[in-house]
Amino acid sequence: MTAAAEPEPATAAGALLLREIAEQPTALLRLLEHAGEYQTVADTAAERGVRLVRMVGHGSSDNAASYGVYAFGLLPGWTAMRDSISLSVYYGAHTDLDGSLVVALSQSGQTPDVVDYVARARRNGAFTVAITNDTESALAEAAEAVLPLAAGPELAVAATKTYTTQVAALALLAACAAGRGEELARGIRTTAAELETLVPRLERELTAIAPAFAFVGRMFVIGRGPEYATAREISLKLMETCRIAAEPLTATDMVHGPVAALDALFPVWTIAAPDESLPAVREAAARARAAGAAIVASGAAAREIEGASYRIEVPESPMTLLSPILSVVPGQIFAWALAQAKGLDPDRPTGLSKITLTP
Amino acid sequence: MTAAAEPEPATAAGALLLREIAEQPTALLRLLEHAGEYQTVADTAAERGVRLVRMVGHGSSDNAASYGVYAFGLLPGWTAMRDSISLSVYYGAHTDLDGSLVVALSQSGQTPDVVDYVARARRNGAFTVAITNDTESALAEAAEAVLPLAAGPELAVAATKTYTTQVAALALLAACAAGRGEELARGIRTTAAELETLVPRLERELTAIAPAFAFVGRMFVIGRGPEYATAREISLKLMETCRIAAEPLTATDMVHGPVAALDALFPVWTIAAPDESLPAVREAAARARAAGAAIVASGAAAREIEGASYRIEVPESPMTLLSPILSVVPGQIFAWALAQAKGLDPDRPTGLSKITLTP
Repeated sequence: MTAAAEPEPATAAGALLLREIAEQPTALLRLLEHAGEYQTVADTAAERGVRLVRMVGHGSSDNAASYGVYAFGLLPGWTAMRDSISLSVYYGAHTDLDGSLVVALSQSGQTPDVVDYVARARRNGAFTVAITNDTESALAEAAEAVLPLAAGPELAVAATKTYTTQVAALALLAACAAGRGEELARGIRTTAAELETLVPRLERELTAIAPAFAFVGRMFVIGRGPEYATAREISLKLMETCRIAAEPLTATDMVHGPVAALDALFPVWTIAAPDESLPAVREAAARARAAGAAIVASGAAAREIEGASYRIEVPESPMTLLSPILSVVPGQIFAWALAQAKGLDPDRPTGLSKITLTP
Repeated sequence: MTAAAEPEPATAAGALLLREIAEQPTALLRLLEHAGEYQTVADTAAERGVRLVRMVGHGSSDNAASYGVYAFGLLPGWTAMRDSISLSVYYGAHTDLDGSLVVALSQSGQTPDVVDYVARARRNGAFTVAITNDTESALAEAAEAVLPLAAGPELAVAATKTYTTQVAALALLAACAAGRGEELARGIRTTAAELETLVPRLERELTAIAPAFAFVGRMFVIGRGPEYATAREISLKLMETCRIAAEPLTATDMVHGPVAALDALFPVWTIAAPDESLPAVREAAARARAAGAAIVASGAAAREIEGASYRIEVPESPMTLLSPILSVVPGQIFAWALAQAKGLDPDRPTGLSKITLTP
């Protein structure tokens, strides 16, 4: 067949997503070119006596914020929370923002209620910082300081390189606040180098595994600590691109009720990092297996999960706190491969657009 | 058949759960007998200059904490967060707890990592308060102050009356901090009276509706603002007792990705309260309907959700902030009725016990 007889779409199904997954090492290194700006914002936050970090964002940006709780908690020892946008924007709550650092996360910088939240917080005395891929956006304009993601244009609807750069950006800001910016930058460089070989390897491995999941309707994705963000992000990729009802749970959440819903048609994906959360994740996997669920074990400690039907190994991270940048990649590539296996186009999921402007 | 020929179990399937659902008005009134103790704790918190409320709990207790974010935010204007237990207990983070009020929620008062979290927080200078159904428990001992739930013994594995009393307890503590304790107590009394007629009506209505859901494998439950807690709690009831993969989402979460997973086999339950979040919930329902999903509309504004296949009305609450106490009851009774329709015993779900002692 010739191109004239069978016109190609602008890009083949999944081509954008896979290209952007592969661009992650480059995007991470480009973020590091802005390390000086991150240090300046961290210094300003310290000068202003920040006691509380309020993160806001939706979708993947909110998942990255789940990671930020651990980055700020473990590096400078700052309390960080995913703040309620509706409390101030819709319900008009008046809370004291003295000593608050607002970190607003939005790839496009156009999410209306995030922009609105930031404008209110700035008027009420918070130090407001936008972390965005578009430093000319409405969000960048609303915030007092702007930190670039520098991930380059992201065209697939499902976020990948903007998620991992958000994670890296939060780690960098937290490390700068703790006086450990250079150490963290070295960790990101090593991570980027690991990703260069990881992506093509996982593309092969997961293309082989994915078809077994073609008729799966529901999954749990289990992670704890910093990897809870990874569980949320992998779930979102599976929902967006593969139409699987995937629910992220901490290991502890799962045993407090949801385990009762499991059966043999209900795979459970566990993210196993070699850190203090591993015993809880191992225990959750054992409980899920006892309920008949098939186990997918991913992460640098995947081999520690007993009885897994599938194991997806990633290299150990140079710093424990950076492991989520590597841990999410199996989920990104699995979602890409499974969408292909199901005949779906992961670049253009039904009913979604790249920028969500509705409430 | 005689009792001797066919021995009865100690209680019929679902009898405990339904009895405890029906006990909720009594439990709420019993909580109010302790209003003075709630006022004392609120006064102490104010004297100590509380700036941040850190709530911890698992399962239904963590769902109640989602409500607490709004109760403290809207009544005294305090920032309240669901704190990470793993950050301090497993990862040993050192955060400044000066000005922190810790509110630990546990029906049994025995959840090990919640007890551990409270003991650490108390040593590090937080004002620690346990809200528990067992004022002699390990949690009660670890905390500086103890506030009783006074819900009476809860025997069904799925929490019902301890959830609604936790919600009421958080509202009461927040109202006492705002000098509005008596107004809130009146609101709880009116709510308890509404529940007396609501429970038997919903028992009839939902027994008729539930069989249509006997083969549902997955659902989304949508709520925003204070009703996000309700969405989480209804999802948990469906997972625990009916083996449905039910995922709670805010209206905004749903349109940022998960909407792509919907189809005609995927019902979406929306909780519609007559407050500032209603337009977002209406919009989310419209998006779900456009994706082919059947809509269940519950709440005091259920009639505002267009195109719903099922409507479950509850009375309007005397105070907007108390509406989650009424809104959760359709989910509790639906879970009870659906478990019966599926031949499951909702009092004793497979794989669960009343007190979870594993990590």
